Amino acid sequence: MPIVTNARVLFNDVPKGYPEPGRTTVYDTSLEIDVEKTLPDGGFLIKTLVLAIDPYMRHRMRDRTVKSYMPAFERGQPLENFGVGVVLRSEHSSVSAGDHLYGLFPFQEYFVSKDPGPFRVLDNKEHLPWSTYVGVCGMPGQTAHHGWREYARPKKGDVVFVTAGAGTVGATVIQLAKMQGLKVIASVGSEEKVSFISSIGANVAFNYKTDSTLDILEKEGPINMHVPSSSGESLEAALETAAVDACFIECGMISGYNEEPYYVKNLDRIFKQGIQLCGFAVLRLQKWDDEFYKTIPGMVSRGEIQYSENVKRGLEHVGQAILDVQVGRNKGRTVILVQDE
Amino acid sequence: MPIVTNARVLFNDVPKGYPEPGRTTVYDTSLEIDVEKTLPDGGFLIKTLVLAIDPYMRHRMRDRTVKSYMPAFERGQPLENFGVGVVLRSEHSSVSAGDHLYGLFPFQEYFVSKDPGPFRVLDNKEHLPWSTYVGVCGMPGQTAHHGWREYARPKKGDVVFVTAGAGTVGATVIQLAKMQGLKVIASVGSEEKVSFISSIGANVAFNYKTDSTLDILEKEGPINMHVPSSSGESLEAALETAAVDACFIECGMISGYNEEPYYVKNLDRIFKQGIQLCGFAVLRLQKWDDEFYKTIPGMVSRGEIQYSENVKRGLEHVGQAILDVQVGRNKGRTVILVQDE
Repeated sequence: MPIVTNARVLFNDVPKGYPEPGRTTVYDTSLEIDVEKTLPDGGFLIKTLVLAIDPYMRHRMRDRTVKSYMPAFERGQPLENFGVGVVLRSEHSSVSAGDHLYGLFPFQEYFVSKDPGPFRVLDNKEHLPWSTYVGVCGMPGQTAHHGWREYARPKKGDVVFVTAGAGTVGATVIQLAKMQGLKVIASVGSEEKVSFISSIGANVAFNYKTDSTLDILEKEGPINMHVPSSSGESLEAALETAAVDACFIECGMISGYNEEPYYVKNLDRIFKQGIQLCGFAVLRLQKWDDEFYKTIPGMVSRGEIQYSENVKRGLEHVGQAILDVQVGRNKGRTVILVQDE
Repeated sequence: MPIVTNARVLFNDVPKGYPEPGRTTVYDTSLEIDVEKTLPDGGFLIKTLVLAIDPYMRHRMRDRTVKSYMPAFERGQPLENFGVGVVLRSEHSSVSAGDHLYGLFPFQEYFVSKDPGPFRVLDNKEHLPWSTYVGVCGMPGQTAHHGWREYARPKKGDVVFVTAGAGTVGATVIQLAKMQGLKVIASVGSEEKVSFISSIGANVAFNYKTDSTLDILEKEGPINMHVPSSSGESLEAALETAAVDACFIECGMISGYNEEPYYVKNLDRIFKQGIQLCGFAVLRLQKWDDEFYKTIPGMVSRGEIQYSENVKRGLEHVGQAILDVQVGRNKGRTVILVQDE
């Protein structure tokens, strides 16, 4: 198969509310590539294996004139997010054919890169599925791990409130907190997810769509930690029931990307209770990366950290997968299996 | 003068919006006291000299059923706030006649206490006016000092944004930041206050009622620190222009006590910029008290820390003084000089 289609998913139009498959993003098959003959021109040719679908991608679907912490996607160019690929051919001294690379990938089946700097070579001696390296062993797992290591000050008897508990960040935090013997209250958006977070150890698991977060926290709290913030409503309830000196570890808010967000009305609790609100973006805590790769994949392979994945095969499902993640219809971490190795 | 009026200011009624002098609080002269014969009954008789009027007192003017970090005032009983008094007579082993005590005082000219625990004996070897001990050398000065010592991480070149810069907390923070060589942007609510904060060293001083906080911060920032939060609008502008890893030291919000507060709309900046929002109530940082009393009164007496005071003579002015502070009509720290020693 010397010449094959080199499928891509392009950013096409800034959405007003939820992203629309086929309009916001377009699956494109207009490119072809000669996999055997394409010259990396001093760089290396990567075959994309898996790509992650993340909530924050919606934030990059904006007009390029609006500045933010992550650049906007460029219209007519492929989307970009964390992925794993295998190097087919390399002319670069520090990358070898057969290497598996992790980093920010274009949504494209094959591409050439000249700079190995942004990529990490994965050794994967545990032989985990590559999809885990964009999930519990990738950015969301790092978000949970790095935030916990940097900011959490767990003390015996502490109560932790975890929102979005079935997501990879939330589920990993639940399990890290349980390993330290803390009481974990966790919220999710469906009964099925309630079962999942109970199975991984949450002491109090509830569906915030049918139960009042505030009522549950008032009964089961006060809370000493909150990780991660997912919406204004849950943050407000968490502030309302926070113990003195509580620590809130905030690494993202999905609510508000697509609709008018809920504005928190009790920020005065921050000074009244002496709360520390610690915001972070995981890319700024890379000092914890080495510890992460040394410990987390092993814990995952031994079953000490469980995860939930929702694998879609083929780039043509990207548009719908992005929408499902925004709406919250995903069950577990959404990963696109682009192609087999 | 064996028998004199023992005037008080009583809490009378929970206000709906701004407190009304004569209705929310009542100046009462129905009590008398025989200053020479009243027996402290194992305690000590205090003559109240000065009392502070603080914004947060409005928060205590609520229904007693509403729980919070400070108890509500009791109807028919005197208001309470920080004061300084002199001991006239003592039957308690650890308090002597002539001692000057600082602590929470009832709004009453004379009173007996049996517990010296909540009071601090002031030595005042600098011979400062007693009013300073409920201001720059009292709770608001401690708020500035303790918050700065506990949370600030000043680095060369940092830019600090101080709101309510003419208040004792804000003005003290401006001067502490300037001593460390930082650039200080400070906002106040009148032209007169702009002059004051310029005189104590603010590099950029502006009136938030006539200039846009956001415009000024965008021009003069990004900001690395924000102290203390006074309103939703200023907090929002500060978040919007915060540098990566900025530190916000939050010790109170006056806006919202009397009217519907402004709800901050960009809390997502906390995680996007990795902002640390450190809330505290000064009473929980008492570990810094000894350092404070060892250093700040001396700096005040040497003129290294300037302050602005607005002294009213007589308890009958308390109701109006409380309203003026809530409306922001006060010029500098409002202190009631209850009586001369």
